[in-house]
Amino acid sequence: MVNESQQSCSGSSSSRSDGSSSGSESSKDNSRCSTPVLDTDRHERLREKMRRRQEAGDRWFSLEFFPPRTANAAVNLISRFDRMGAGGPLFIDVTWHPAGDPGSDKETSSMIIANTAVNYCGLETILHMTCCNQTKDDITGHLQKAKRLGLKNIMALRGDPAGEEWEEEVDGFNHAVDLVKHIRSEFDDYFDICVAGYPKGHPEAESYEADLRHLKEKVFAGADFVITQLFFRPETFLKFMKDCQAMGITCPIIPGIFPIQGYHSLRQLVKLSKLEVPQEIKDVIEPIKDNDAAIRNYGVELAVSMCRELLDSGMVHGLHFYTLNREVATTEVLKRLGLWKEDPRRPLPWAVSAHPKRRVEDVRPIFWASRPKSYIYRTQEWDDFPNGRWGNSSSPAFGELKDYYLFYLKSKSPREELLKMWGEELTGEESVFEVFTCYITGEPNRNGYRVTCMPWNDDPLATETNLLKDQLEKVNRRGILTINSQPNINGKPSTDPIVGWGPSGGYVFQKAYLEFFTSSEIVTALLKVLKKYELRVNYHIVNVKGQNITNAPDLQPNAVTWGIFPGREIIQPTVVDPVSFLYWKDEAFALWIEQWAKLYEEESPSRMIIQYIHDNYYLVNLVDNDFPLENCLWQVVDDTFELLN
Amino acid sequence: MVNESQQSCSGSSSSRSDGSSSGSESSKDNSRCSTPVLDTDRHERLREKMRRRQEAGDRWFSLEFFPPRTANAAVNLISRFDRMGAGGPLFIDVTWHPAGDPGSDKETSSMIIANTAVNYCGLETILHMTCCNQTKDDITGHLQKAKRLGLKNIMALRGDPAGEEWEEEVDGFNHAVDLVKHIRSEFDDYFDICVAGYPKGHPEAESYEADLRHLKEKVFAGADFVITQLFFRPETFLKFMKDCQAMGITCPIIPGIFPIQGYHSLRQLVKLSKLEVPQEIKDVIEPIKDNDAAIRNYGVELAVSMCRELLDSGMVHGLHFYTLNREVATTEVLKRLGLWKEDPRRPLPWAVSAHPKRRVEDVRPIFWASRPKSYIYRTQEWDDFPNGRWGNSSSPAFGELKDYYLFYLKSKSPREELLKMWGEELTGEESVFEVFTCYITGEPNRNGYRVTCMPWNDDPLATETNLLKDQLEKVNRRGILTINSQPNINGKPSTDPIVGWGPSGGYVFQKAYLEFFTSSEIVTALLKVLKKYELRVNYHIVNVKGQNITNAPDLQPNAVTWGIFPGREIIQPTVVDPVSFLYWKDEAFALWIEQWAKLYEEESPSRMIIQYIHDNYYLVNLVDNDFPLENCLWQVVDDTFELLN
Repeated sequence: MVNESQQSCSGSSSSRSDGSSSGSESSKDNSRCSTPVLDTDRHERLREKMRRRQEAGDRWFSLEFFPPRTANAAVNLISRFDRMGAGGPLFIDVTWHPAGDPGSDKETSSMIIANTAVNYCGLETILHMTCCNQTKDDITGHLQKAKRLGLKNIMALRGDPAGEEWEEEVDGFNHAVDLVKHIRSEFDDYFDICVAGYPKGHPEAESYEADLRHLKEKVFAGADFVITQLFFRPETFLKFMKDCQAMGITCPIIPGIFPIQGYHSLRQLVKLSKLEVPQEIKDVIEPIKDNDAAIRNYGVELAVSMCRELLDSGMVHGLHFYTLNREVATTEVLKRLGLWKEDPRRPLPWAVSAHPKRRVEDVRPIFWASRPKSYIYRTQEWDDFPNGRWGNSSSPAFGELKDYYLFYLKSKSPREELLKMWGEELTGEESVFEVFTCYITGEPNRNGYRVTCMPWNDDPLATETNLLKDQLEKVNRRGILTINSQPNINGKPSTDPIVGWGPSGGYVFQKAYLEFFTSSEIVTALLKVLKKYELRVNYHIVNVKGQNITNAPDLQPNAVTWGIFPGREIIQPTVVDPVSFLYWKDEAFALWIEQWAKLYEEESPSRMIIQYIHDNYYLVNLVDNDFPLENCLWQVVDDTFELLN
Repeated sequence: MVNESQQSCSGSSSSRSDGSSSGSESSKDNSRCSTPVLDTDRHERLREKMRRRQEAGDRWFSLEFFPPRTANAAVNLISRFDRMGAGGPLFIDVTWHPAGDPGSDKETSSMIIANTAVNYCGLETILHMTCCNQTKDDITGHLQKAKRLGLKNIMALRGDPAGEEWEEEVDGFNHAVDLVKHIRSEFDDYFDICVAGYPKGHPEAESYEADLRHLKEKVFAGADFVITQLFFRPETFLKFMKDCQAMGITCPIIPGIFPIQGYHSLRQLVKLSKLEVPQEIKDVIEPIKDNDAAIRNYGVELAVSMCRELLDSGMVHGLHFYTLNREVATTEVLKRLGLWKEDPRRPLPWAVSAHPKRRVEDVRPIFWASRPKSYIYRTQEWDDFPNGRWGNSSSPAFGELKDYYLFYLKSKSPREELLKMWGEELTGEESVFEVFTCYITGEPNRNGYRVTCMPWNDDPLATETNLLKDQLEKVNRRGILTINSQPNINGKPSTDPIVGWGPSGGYVFQKAYLEFFTSSEIVTALLKVLKKYELRVNYHIVNVKGQNITNAPDLQPNAVTWGIFPGREIIQPTVVDPVSFLYWKDEAFALWIEQWAKLYEEESPSRMIIQYIHDNYYLVNLVDNDFPLENCLWQVVDDTFELLN
């Protein structure tokens, strides 16, 4: 739309189309928690989801973001996607950023940010695309790339002229309607297309009526729905809506909501969008212009009251929020409207990707539980994703993790912080044990810093893992360096706030799992102890060279999480798979070096200690198959230590 | 082999090749109870199973049968396969019957009996085939048909000449070795080939040594193992074995054991096989020749003692029994040898077919639980069998059951018996209720006859169904005419003698299931009651015209039996599938007419009553999804009756 490029130059957004995201889950119970493979929702395109929500009388929201300028800002934005995605948006959208190389592979490009939202965050996503100043081939190339990345929705915009004056290009696109037609002619019905509407008329349009005619053209050329530019009074939108309907525009028209968040951002926005702020709003804001909190509170009030009026009109089913990449105001408005539906229930124990190819995926190896982005990255070339079972046929080779600085897999924390957490200087293997122990307990380390992440887990301990905290602390202290675990669960309701997942009315189950690094001395004792548990415990023990000791039947995966639901087949979303364990092993060992050892000078004692562990320790996983009984894995570890004494 | 045709003419067998059967399960724990899809055993061919058993130091047996002469005898033989299959034979074999149209589609042909053993009884089976007096094309046709039916093993024999004198045919097969070569040249390695060995030398051979050379030729032409003609002294076999080894024959050589079962059958056998009965045996038998029981006891003693000696020699791993289609003597010998391993555990809740294509099959709809042969028949054209899940893609159309007299699907009982059980004359729907009730209770009906089968179930009530007997009786009395049911099970050990299945160390689960015919009046009340159970109970209610009422999500199957095993993925062998329910519905309704109504004269009141039920009743299935709670289906039925009162 018209102000896209200016908005990106200004760094703060005046954007017009708002996006909220939902990925496989929408905010309604009935669609949110269905098991993926069987869930019609999973195969629905955005316009169908929108229609279904509208028909169900269900209200929804969407969230708009712009691409960040720096790599660090991108990492923060992705975290924001995860946090705001939890509120249940129907979709998010990512604006096109002509000055920011928007179709490139840069980690800050519009294309890559949208790709991340879909594939890694599991959010239904609309990618904006402008058409002016670009050749048809450029546009087609962008669209092909978007399709390849799994993007299914495009917001078709004209974009702003390069210079001050608008000049028609002879062989290019001059209007958004050209882009809509181009998408439909080149890609048929593959994409859902959204276009922009201007409740006050486009600033460059001859008249309000002429602008309505332009909108009608865009819709009749194949657009599926409309998102509007922001406005300040509900009646502005409602009049626009009626006028559209009178013109014969029957597709959904979603009002763009802009919660005022500060004096300067408002001024800038007004300048860019050529909108006029109503006098009654100016009157309130001018006196408090230096009090950010007061302005934001006022903005929230104003937005809530406008949204209520829109929803009460009966003409509005969804609200699109211009977030300006900020969380507080929008989240507050949504919570007060009752639209923010943070549902602790998960459709599966892991976050489902929104890539169309991956929508049937409903089983993954447990190893990447704390590194889902890495798993998605390493399996992105797969043509088929396991659905129902983890057969050997479903596990072609994993992609290499060659570049350990691969953007979204890096630690969120900078080197200095990691050094404070993991030790400026290590004095021996015991210093490493201490780091693991502090991560588990949440207690500060000897230098007073809390260990909030580890190379294998960039986030603090999961709530579920907390169930095992005391035992985990005990074993880490003694050199069983745990990186993944889950307790056994014998049929808890699927609505359980900690271990539940899937639709309500079901029961979830788990086998106890424990995965750790440990020394060869401990492994020797452990193997003796495991003989006693031969029929009960399955194990895989491997070192960096790939020496592999296991009692698992040939290449057979072991289901360690499963759920039974009303009227459904069994879902088994997590398995311990011997084949992929060897791929994970490479990654798990490499993280010692790439994330930890390399914090220290080459040849330094600290680096040598990590290198020693990397070269000599084993990676072990244990499954207790007897899920109805008390978890015996702690007893296995206790027996091992006893044998060593 | 040489006496095949004579044996079949005489009606009692002098056969030489022994066969025991195992289907997907062998008598060893570790192979017997593995879950099918993951079990290496399932994909092993017979010669590999044999080798594995030998390497494991495991002893096994096999059983030989000849094709019956009458259809009734065929039905009895199939029952015998089921009973003797329970003892865990490694394979069975079926002799070729030149006079009995052995390659035809007749229910008594060698081909069809072997087909039944493989496909319906799940037994690893060797089909004999003789080659003399047949063209190459005939032979190729038989082999192609065998392959198409899923037969994997051929016993290659010469057969006996048509006349008294042997004449070489110029363009035909003159020796078993020709058949071996033909199979290998036309079918490559597809079949496992067995050939006959003669411990005393073939009666027509120039010499014992010449016969050994013939055997070597057959083995070197591609035979995988040898089964011997019967013999009376262990040293006969052991010498033969050593002589074979000295000749360079290294494949397995399996002794054929013939437990003497009667004076006349022994005499006939001796005449046909041209063997001489040792004097010490004659001395015992002659004085007791009119006492069948005494001879059989002696025969068992003799066989046991000979088998022990063979096994103790260390040269023998498997024993092949010439059963003469009788059970008692062979079973007794096997039990005394400790080779009869009746394992109550099942690899899956239903009997697994031994057809190579079906070996991966591990999920079926519950509807055919009592009619597995019909299910196998109706799905025999499927190219793929569901493995792991029951996806819609895995359920192509079911074959029609056009011919209700289809041999193996007929009732085992003759019309007169069925009339005694189901009523010579029906006086109303209540007479029908009574029949169902008597079937459940096992009490005699008003004419003093026990109802031991029903059109939907040719066998007495399953042990598992007995768990529900009291409730079933109550509801059948009132017109809920049950044809299938299972109790809910919340994690019983997989070794449970009644509901267990699969490898040991696992846990099995079930959702309660109830399927019945009932009147539209009861259905109306039931539907009102089911509203109260909407989230808990899934139902499908259909009449003969296909009017279908259900609350199940679109075409989604509901897993009603599943198991969790050490180191394995989840197995869900039974589902309630809405699509196949409609195929089953046709069959279930048709059985009223084909098996019951047609017992009576056209236009007779009894026939009209059954026809009325067929035309007006509904077929209902109910699943209680809350398997950890007490089964609510009885409450549903009680509520329905209460509503009706």
